[in-house]
Amino acid sequence: MDVGFIGLGDMGAVMAANLVKAGHTVRVWNRSPGPLEALEREGARPVASARQAFAGEAVISMLADDDAVRSVIVEGGLLEQATKNLIHVNMATLSVRFVRELAELHRTHNVTYIAAPVFGRPEVAELAKLHIVAAGDPRAIETVQPLFDAMGQKTWRFGDEPHRANVVKVTGNFMIASVIELLGEATAMAKGHGVAADELIQMLTGTLFGAPVFQIYGALIAQQRFEPAGFKLQLGLKDVRLALEAGEDVHAPLPFASIVRDSLLDAIAHGDSNKDWSALSRVAFRRAGLG
Amino acid sequence: MDVGFIGLGDMGAVMAANLVKAGHTVRVWNRSPGPLEALEREGARPVASARQAFAGEAVISMLADDDAVRSVIVEGGLLEQATKNLIHVNMATLSVRFVRELAELHRTHNVTYIAAPVFGRPEVAELAKLHIVAAGDPRAIETVQPLFDAMGQKTWRFGDEPHRANVVKVTGNFMIASVIELLGEATAMAKGHGVAADELIQMLTGTLFGAPVFQIYGALIAQQRFEPAGFKLQLGLKDVRLALEAGEDVHAPLPFASIVRDSLLDAIAHGDSNKDWSALSRVAFRRAGLG
Amino acid sequence: MDVGFIGLGDMGAVMAANLVKAGHTVRVWNRSPGPLEALEREGARPVASARQAFAGEAVISMLADDDAVRSVIVEGGLLEQATKNLIHVNMATLSVRFVRELAELHRTHNVTYIAAPVFGRPEVAELAKLHIVAAGDPRAIETVQPLFDAMGQKTWRFGDEPHRANVVKVTGNFMIASVIELLGEATAMAKGHGVAADELIQMLTGTLFGAPVFQIYGALIAQQRFEPAGFKLQLGLKDVRLALEAGEDVHAPLPFASIVRDSLLDAIAHGDSNKDWSALSRVAFRRAGLG
Amino acid sequence: MDVGFIGLGDMGAVMAANLVKAGHTVRVWNRSPGPLEALEREGARPVASARQAFAGEAVISMLADDDAVRSVIVEGGLLEQATKNLIHVNMATLSVRFVRELAELHRTHNVTYIAAPVFGRPEVAELAKLHIVAAGDPRAIETVQPLFDAMGQKTWRFGDEPHRANVVKVTGNFMIASVIELLGEATAMAKGHGVAADELIQMLTGTLFGAPVFQIYGALIAQQRFEPAGFKLQLGLKDVRLALEAGEDVHAPLPFASIVRDSLLDAIAHGDSNKDWSALSRVAFRRAGLG
Repeated sequence: MDVGFIGLGDMGAVMAANLVKAGHTVRVWNRSPGPLEALEREGARPVASARQAFAGEAVISMLADDDAVRSVIVEGGLLEQATKNLIHVNMATLSVRFVRELAELHRTHNVTYIAAPVFGRPEVAELAKLHIVAAGDPRAIETVQPLFDAMGQKTWRFGDEPHRANVVKVTGNFMIASVIELLGEATAMAKGHGVAADELIQMLTGTLFGAPVFQIYGALIAQQRFEPAGFKLQLGLKDVRLALEAGEDVHAPLPFASIVRDSLLDAIAHGDSNKDWSALSRVAFRRAGLG
Repeated sequence: MDVGFIGLGDMGAVMAANLVKAGHTVRVWNRSPGPLEALEREGARPVASARQAFAGEAVISMLADDDAVRSVIVEGGLLEQATKNLIHVNMATLSVRFVRELAELHRTHNVTYIAAPVFGRPEVAELAKLHIVAAGDPRAIETVQPLFDAMGQKTWRFGDEPHRANVVKVTGNFMIASVIELLGEATAMAKGHGVAADELIQMLTGTLFGAPVFQIYGALIAQQRFEPAGFKLQLGLKDVRLALEAGEDVHAPLPFASIVRDSLLDAIAHGDSNKDWSALSRVAFRRAGLG
Repeated sequence: MDVGFIGLGDMGAVMAANLVKAGHTVRVWNRSPGPLEALEREGARPVASARQAFAGEAVISMLADDDAVRSVIVEGGLLEQATKNLIHVNMATLSVRFVRELAELHRTHNVTYIAAPVFGRPEVAELAKLHIVAAGDPRAIETVQPLFDAMGQKTWRFGDEPHRANVVKVTGNFMIASVIELLGEATAMAKGHGVAADELIQMLTGTLFGAPVFQIYGALIAQQRFEPAGFKLQLGLKDVRLALEAGEDVHAPLPFASIVRDSLLDAIAHGDSNKDWSALSRVAFRRAGLG
Repeated sequence: MDVGFIGLGDMGAVMAANLVKAGHTVRVWNRSPGPLEALEREGARPVASARQAFAGEAVISMLADDDAVRSVIVEGGLLEQATKNLIHVNMATLSVRFVRELAELHRTHNVTYIAAPVFGRPEVAELAKLHIVAAGDPRAIETVQPLFDAMGQKTWRFGDEPHRANVVKVTGNFMIASVIELLGEATAMAKGHGVAADELIQMLTGTLFGAPVFQIYGALIAQQRFEPAGFKLQLGLKDVRLALEAGEDVHAPLPFASIVRDSLLDAIAHGDSNKDWSALSRVAFRRAGLG
């Protein structure tokens, strides 16, 4: 396919590279030109303006957050100038509220909007093993499925209202953060009674809790290995805020998200903003006098 | 081995039966004589007093809670009358505080105390597939290992201080309860935005959250199937209380446990005491006006 | 003094009227012209544009929220066109974050910015009994003190950085909301044990808790009198959000604010958005099965 | 009146002394004989056994907690040996659950049980300015009213079921603890924004929050004066536990009490057990990195 790609950060760059490898023609654009050169060497075609990327059969965007999307796409006037029948696949983690607004805006401008946020860190993206959560017009999703197949191991479909894919993404991240908090509380309490974190986690993940989320974060916590950051704690705060906001939109209290938010602030107050978000577990230890 | 067994409730009865099947000589006793007859038919030997069970090489006890153990074993004077070199394997879920006291009491009376609480519901116990968490004198554990092998699929060792096994058990149950609360909050919020619980859970357990704890409770919540109770909600409250108390003993705040406790009370106030503890998830739905 | 007044809602209208009564020349403007006529009859001078109000020695603004201020004052270009040496007294309840931005913006345009949010409901404003919390350039505050004296019973000064007045306002509202939640929990628990709310509250306010905040909200809760709303519950949610945001700005966890937020959402999910925010207390009753 | 007095701690000793001063005949007993001598000098009559105090027209008890009452009065066999028509006025802070049991036990033994816990610290007790919360048989309360008048400034009646007085006491202490937590969170957040605690508290207590509870604890927090302890933080934890238990008995969630409990544990983990319970406020400061 002939596809544009906007937003070449840690995730976007490897995703675009995978599209090139899979034989697609990829017009790439980024706000800062840094990542363009390397991608050009891999076969992507740098374009001079976002408008040139926001054209063709489909365009994927992978911008940092709501503000970046608003600035580049909405205020940048891309919708007004989009080519006919363009499918915009927005793979960023955005607020549910903003995606509802975006979907409406695209409808007004006759641009098809597919929300397709992903689960997976950069190293997973590199292996084209992302889990992609897609929602929007089913035929448009069929059309771009080859693109998803080039970037991910599986596409999970959530109907034709785009914002629902973002609900799922936000929910997933809220759940990961909550598992980290839970592991922090559990291991702090156990340690207070003389039970070592690694032994506890080995048992847990060997029985009922044998899932990647417990294995990955359990290991980081047991080894107190919070650097380098796979996902920065301050970004975790952003995502928990998205969950709280999504809850607020449907007046759903999320007491666990509130606790996690408070623990994240505590962690930031103690200098852990740029550590991996598993460093959230240190709060439980510090509060128990085990810091 | 020649082993006594005290406490033949839902769990104890099938555990004792498995010991018989494995060829051990099992002297069984229960406060109410109901379960004795069936076990006798399977080859166990009913004895007339707890004292006769609290004798021989080893005795296993599987009583309901702290109060039952205090009444039958401590106040019943069993420690004073125990045979020499007896190993007492206490497999019940008890408070950490009480187990510390019990271990000390056994030491005074020269009875070896092994704590060996289990993970697994009655149907798992029936298949001899329990996970057994053991702590206490290592040589005594070696001695009773054939008994564990007859009842469980794996024994997890946590050193020679008995109460640590109970810390692990209490921590595990606190974590299960927290996962239920988390699934309740997540699915309520998602539902508010039109995402069906079963689709959300299918995706979650197909990715990062692919562990029995998410699969089992996710399915119950998605299907709103809270009866019959695999584990009653009011017993869940008891166990979360044990976690809060164990946290208090080492001044470790457990904010998630406090939230779960409040949700359990809310559930009980709305008539769900005797439902499965996955009914805890209904609280999040009710609070969001989705009840 | 010759003073402009922008924003004539429930509060602004009576405050402007009090300025007129005190002999000041008041140029009034409002987005919707509704309230202008009545004020003209009382002696105020309606002006045709916000720009004409944003002029003279001083201008008071009392707009609904951040968005209204951004739209009317910032995007309306008032700062660029302000008369020289103008003092802008912003008496609205705004986010601390936005006030920091506003103060900076005013500095750039050489307009003096005084933050002066108030405590008191419309009936208190009518009696010119507001408590005014002021921060900003001390000489400018001296200059406008006669205006404050015409509207309030006392001015509390918080130094020369305007945002600090808003910190105090936001903190105060967070504390009121927390007292309501506290009274809800306490009276629900007491009622569960057969103690009537009015008797409990009479004792409390007759001893350690003899403050208006307990007397006023205690009476509303004891009488379950949530209509008409003195202050709407949904506005309470807005203010608690401001507190959480102000906490986040300085990475200060506010666990009570999180609890209150969750209770407010629960209340909104049950149809109480437009009731008085003391209806927040119903959540504690409902959760205890006393709804 | 001829009255016995059991339990001569910090509170009991001054209360008994006030009874003597008011002209009553007071037979005093204490587990450790220390306080007896001083009281004898003031005119009280030491007796050799609790049984001799648990006799006459009325006996007041002011023991430390549930365990002390159980040990001295219940297990000490005092009820079996009580004189006919004896009125037992129990003024201690006890668990609601235990008072229900005690009231029933007294009924069985034909001893009248009046619950009459008090609000006030030792220096208030010394001035005979306690607030007394009384419940039980109204005629018995009339009979002992002169005793209350000698110790307190006012008696608040809560009907004829004794445990209700304890519900009120437990509720009151939960509310004080919550106000301390609230002041901690509010002043920490304000300080993060540069607003001094004493200025904030002066404004608050000068307006809506002008009650002793805010004045007393606000001053301690503003001055960071946590020693000597007026009421020890670890006793505060005991009382919050009583509130949580009383809530549990009627399945009433108390989210604020859970937060306070967690903060108290955090304070204890950081060495503040024996400081005044207003030191609870330090937790909010520490969590915000302001410790």
